[in-house]
Amino acid sequence: MKKMQIGIDVGGTNIRAGLVSSDGKIISLTKRTITGHKQPSLFINFLTSLINETKKISPIKHVGLGIPGIVSAKDGIVFSSPHYPEWENFSIQKQLQSKIKIRVSIDNDANQIALGEAHFGAGKKLNSFLMLTLGTGIGGGIIINKKIFHGTNGFAGEFGHIVVVKDGNPCGCGSRGCLETYASQTGLKHLSKKAGLSLKNIPDEKVGHFLFEQAVGGNTKAKKIFEEFGTYLGIGIASLVNVTGIDNIVLGGGLSEAKKYFLASLKKSIRTHTYKKTAEGIKIHFALLGDKAGILGATQK
Amino acid sequence: MKKMQIGIDVGGTNIRAGLVSSDGKIISLTKRTITGHKQPSLFINFLTSLINETKKISPIKHVGLGIPGIVSAKDGIVFSSPHYPEWENFSIQKQLQSKIKIRVSIDNDANQIALGEAHFGAGKKLNSFLMLTLGTGIGGGIIINKKIFHGTNGFAGEFGHIVVVKDGNPCGCGSRGCLETYASQTGLKHLSKKAGLSLKNIPDEKVGHFLFEQAVGGNTKAKKIFEEFGTYLGIGIASLVNVTGIDNIVLGGGLSEAKKYFLASLKKSIRTHTYKKTAEGIKIHFALLGDKAGILGATQK
Repeated sequence: MKKMQIGIDVGGTNIRAGLVSSDGKIISLTKRTITGHKQPSLFINFLTSLINETKKISPIKHVGLGIPGIVSAKDGIVFSSPHYPEWENFSIQKQLQSKIKIRVSIDNDANQIALGEAHFGAGKKLNSFLMLTLGTGIGGGIIINKKIFHGTNGFAGEFGHIVVVKDGNPCGCGSRGCLETYASQTGLKHLSKKAGLSLKNIPDEKVGHFLFEQAVGGNTKAKKIFEEFGTYLGIGIASLVNVTGIDNIVLGGGLSEAKKYFLASLKKSIRTHTYKKTAEGIKIHFALLGDKAGILGATQK
Repeated sequence: MKKMQIGIDVGGTNIRAGLVSSDGKIISLTKRTITGHKQPSLFINFLTSLINETKKISPIKHVGLGIPGIVSAKDGIVFSSPHYPEWENFSIQKQLQSKIKIRVSIDNDANQIALGEAHFGAGKKLNSFLMLTLGTGIGGGIIINKKIFHGTNGFAGEFGHIVVVKDGNPCGCGSRGCLETYASQTGLKHLSKKAGLSLKNIPDEKVGHFLFEQAVGGNTKAKKIFEEFGTYLGIGIASLVNVTGIDNIVLGGGLSEAKKYFLASLKKSIRTHTYKKTAEGIKIHFALLGDKAGILGATQK
């Protein structure tokens, strides 16, 4: 039997583990809630039992993890993770590997998503691109020649935290005016408040869908909010292209469903904030793999 | 006789050509004013006569040019250049090479400066770094493993045009709020106006030196302006590191003379706008080669 891989997407409350065949098909998917297992050694045990169970289906040659936060793929260490305050300098790769005796690799979750799209999704025909995952924050990944570009510090691709408005909206990272405080679900919340559109206690991760439905129903305020969202996102993308010279952009995350309400202002904003020659080359693609991207990407190491 | 190289720095009004030995020494330097030679074919003739003259001193194996504007090093073409409106899709490499029968290479001037510092200056011991040349605008260059990173469109490193203030100061590029409208000589002009400090018709490229002298003389407004300058520059550098993951920064350009007035606010601003782990790794270096960097860098291709 050909050995398979396990791709694991570590979320804030759920963990999703996919058994992935050599041709990139998810054979089975397990979803578990991780409340109560947050402390590092408990989490290692939790992962070990999950992997041991999956091993009953197929022999495994590699386990890849996508983890939110400041992660060193090279050293296999999580320096900090927003949902796991206990994780500081957590050598998760080494610890898990010594338990399960299978090769383990880790990376930032947004990087794994970009890698998944690069090999199996919207980036299949692209050698290099920038990926932005628009969720409650913004995940970023730089793909160069089909590989993640990590930079020298290991943390490249923090697109959500480039500053687009000096002293702007407060951000969860402690800074102000970060791109993700304008062009994400959280950003839409800020924009809605400014526009005087009530969100009626809708949870952060559903703000975009609520506003989308409002826009579909003809709510002009909601339409205006998406227009503004596109303008900010365009500023961010223009800056990213100006810095990296990489002009294929893949947009992922649930907010894409509202693209007809923000694509025009997005493109206009990109043109406004780049040289003509630069703007001409920029192409916007939309992700194809949804929440499978991170699992598939995690197997590509 | 060992063949030498010519490194040429194409400025807005002056051209400086250096005869460079194989160990990176500038043996002789020629400076010429180029008024009246701006039309492409005249400019090729102008360069040819300059190079032919230099050839009398030593046989030449390579001529490298640093040119301001949107330049494709790969294709040898200048798409546009701020001081030369006649230069559109100007195939300068091919045209010059066929005239002088010596290998010619070109690149953006800020890239050549970065390459010069990488091989002979502040970046000598660094494999990878980001270079910002703070002049009337901001020139940018990304060095990865001692080479210029051009991105896929060829125009990586346009650091001056990342947006730090939505709808902020108007920029020569047509956009608004670009980093270089705050953290360059032009930026200091804007900041001085806002602070109510009169610049008495001082030309743009001397604003920084004037303010520096004012600060040295105890002018608190001038000191405050440099402090603000540092804050904006810090926002820009934080965004650059967040995107690229490259955390060695080399600052060049004449404004460095005022570093004691902006370095504290610059470092504070970087810390404010990055994660702790990211901030810890960021190192600020100052360029060592002055206006020789571009000439030396142009020979490294």
